[in-house]
Amino acid sequence: MKAAVLNNTNQPLAIENITFNELQEGQVLVEIAYSGICHSQLMEVRGKRGEDKWLPHLLGHEATGFVRKVGNGVTKVKEGDKVVLGWIKGEGLNAPCASYDNNGKTINSGQVTTFNEFSIVSENRVTKLEEGIPLDVAVLFGCAIPTGSGIVINEIQAKENTTIAIFGLGGIGLSALMATKLYNFNKVIAIDIEENKLQLAKEFGATHTINSSKEDVNERLKELTLNEGVDYSVEATGLAKIIEIAFKNVKNNGGLCVFASHPQNGDLIKIDPFDLICGKQIKGSWGGACIPDRDLPKFYKLYKEGKLPLEKLLEKRYTLDEINEALDDLENRKVTRPLIQINPALEK
Amino acid sequence: MKAAVLNNTNQPLAIENITFNELQEGQVLVEIAYSGICHSQLMEVRGKRGEDKWLPHLLGHEATGFVRKVGNGVTKVKEGDKVVLGWIKGEGLNAPCASYDNNGKTINSGQVTTFNEFSIVSENRVTKLEEGIPLDVAVLFGCAIPTGSGIVINEIQAKENTTIAIFGLGGIGLSALMATKLYNFNKVIAIDIEENKLQLAKEFGATHTINSSKEDVNERLKELTLNEGVDYSVEATGLAKIIEIAFKNVKNNGGLCVFASHPQNGDLIKIDPFDLICGKQIKGSWGGACIPDRDLPKFYKLYKEGKLPLEKLLEKRYTLDEINEALDDLENRKVTRPLIQINPALEK
Ligand SMILES: NC(=O)c1ccc[n+]([C@@H]2O[C@H](COP(=O)([O-])OP(=O)(O)OC[C@H]3O[C@@H](n4cnc5c(N)ncnc54)[C@H](O)[C@@H]3O)[C@@H](O)[C@H]2O)c1
Ligand SMILES: NC(=O)c1ccc[n+]([C@@H]2O[C@H](COP(=O)([O-])OP(=O)(O)OC[C@H]3O[C@@H](n4cnc5c(N)ncnc54)[C@H](O)[C@@H]3O)[C@@H](O)[C@H]2O)c1
Ligand SMILES: [Zn+2]
Ligand SMILES: [Zn+2]
Repeated sequence: MKAAVLNNTNQPLAIENITFNELQEGQVLVEIAYSGICHSQLMEVRGKRGEDKWLPHLLGHEATGFVRKVGNGVTKVKEGDKVVLGWIKGEGLNAPCASYDNNGKTINSGQVTTFNEFSIVSENRVTKLEEGIPLDVAVLFGCAIPTGSGIVINEIQAKENTTIAIFGLGGIGLSALMATKLYNFNKVIAIDIEENKLQLAKEFGATHTINSSKEDVNERLKELTLNEGVDYSVEATGLAKIIEIAFKNVKNNGGLCVFASHPQNGDLIKIDPFDLICGKQIKGSWGGACIPDRDLPKFYKLYKEGKLPLEKLLEKRYTLDEINEALDDLENRKVTRPLIQINPALEK
Repeated sequence: MKAAVLNNTNQPLAIENITFNELQEGQVLVEIAYSGICHSQLMEVRGKRGEDKWLPHLLGHEATGFVRKVGNGVTKVKEGDKVVLGWIKGEGLNAPCASYDNNGKTINSGQVTTFNEFSIVSENRVTKLEEGIPLDVAVLFGCAIPTGSGIVINEIQAKENTTIAIFGLGGIGLSALMATKLYNFNKVIAIDIEENKLQLAKEFGATHTINSSKEDVNERLKELTLNEGVDYSVEATGLAKIIEIAFKNVKNNGGLCVFASHPQNGDLIKIDPFDLICGKQIKGSWGGACIPDRDLPKFYKLYKEGKLPLEKLLEKRYTLDEINEALDDLENRKVTRPLIQINPALEK
């Protein structure tokens, strides 16, 4: 089967023909239809996570497909099931990581990988997909939606008539923005450096947008909040210095910044301890505090009710052979969430 | 009346004869018996809070005394009441800040000051003291106890059989340590650079002590927690770099660092955002999240039950004339909580 392999960081992924072994206890063999690409893979490929001890290895952490076989002990899914693959741990067995082979070269993988035609994943990284949701948009249930929407739904217990600012309108930020429509926010302020992202944000319900490459975001936020700061900020640009700004701009005495960004290895955030004493709060998010088995059905429902315009995040499609182009486009902010069509024929 | 005046930062306080005006609405005139000194006053006097726009001004934020007169609208206390003065806002009117006079020189003050024989304070900064608690030890109810013990009681919802580390055993840290005895901690680890503080910590119930000037505190904490990190850390050294260490050493997935320190102006804390993503939490404390009217009666009760060995914090006494010596001793770590005897005769 074909797979995109990271042989060395800071090199293009190599499309290789690899084989896999018998399923071990708790493992599930999935034939992949579609995969998304998250900023996290970009960081891995570009070597920004520090030394990579697992080279060569497979990648990817949000996808959809069909179960083709299950290992011993697996009860959550069975052959033929339509599933979402994601990195966030759910119920089920925590199986060993699979390894693959290319003519004697061992290729490592984590508990889930998705840039490959078949994937051996751990039972606790698959969740059944409901009927009525296309396999392409459903990739976002693997990471972007639980993380972004999860931050708003699970981690920000939004009070009525409050103000929220979202920094960075990529897959995560836009997924957070979608979820704001479920609450009565007074102002929803979307911030990015790309005009087209800000346009999209308006379609998604942002009441105000700030292009922080052209405007002073601190000043604009002061204006919009009468110098008080926002009640909540969500940060998902991938940059430590923007986490700092997102934190600084929440109000004293209960303002909360939740960030998703996992910046480059070694990049620290610098914050004024007195801001914390004054009651500004900061929290890092781990997958929007989602438990897939509990939360994905809620997201499926919202999608079916027309409340999650997932297709708008996936305007650009690539084949598996074009994966390096997809990574470049994501890096150069030419695409929101690249959709890799691994085997779209599976849909029918 | 005599008062210690800060005419310029980085100068000794001047003992001056000053006068006060008629009480305004919401103000309370208190004759002070005793005052404590908190590290915060040291920072103010030493000019470490940035530009001081209020010079010349009075200082001090924990004391005891007797109400001598009340302004219009004051209902919480009356003439003759024995009271605790503190900086944490409680119930009652928020009165304007009083100003004083020395032969035409105006001397500013905040809503509470305590290094003076009489003080005009705001109704919401006084709390009645119960009978049976000496006026000297009761100064600690103004800041050290609500902040330090408050952190443990209000801000750390300690689970059973958990581990807590306390960094910095001054007035705040030791007050936190006292409160740990009210819970079933598995390990209580006290950290300071002064041997006598560590000795005191043992008397207060610390199960382990670390002299971080002699031992590697990170290594010791790893050993003591089997590499997991502590469940909770309390930080009160006054230093940004120790806040960083206190945060780093809480466990992933729910470990909580609460710090009191308000470091020198401009000193930031640097933290790894991935630690926050992994579920380490950090919070700055504002007076231990105490509401004096709700919380001081609880502390009075604990004191009467013998659970708060307040006198051990106040081993060294100074007259108001000796206040600069007291500040120097606090700076040089020669005293835990300096007790200023402004008018000890009032006790009788
Ligand atoms: N914590 C988690 O559970 C979790 C889960 C998924 C992703 N992540 C992380 O979240 C971050 C975002 O991921 P993504 O896939 O949405 O990334 P992305 O690349 O799709 O989006 C980043 C967005 O930020 C914008 N941006 C870049 N620089 C900016 C700046 N200076 N100011 C304002 N906006 C700026 C870009 O234009 C883009 O719209 C990454 O760090 C990723 O690793 C974390
Ligand atoms: N947030 C609040 O509500 C609040 C309230 C009161 C005080 N404070 C702040 O809390 C901090 C502590 O106040 P305090 O009055 O207890 O101070 P303190 O001077 O009495 O105590 C500081 C302690 O830290 C120890 N220490 C110094 N350097 C150390 C190091 N490198 N490692 C370990 N220990 C070290 C000292 O020996 C001393 O025991 C100050 O910054 C003060 O401004 C905050
Ligand atoms: Zn992701
Ligand atoms: Zn204090």
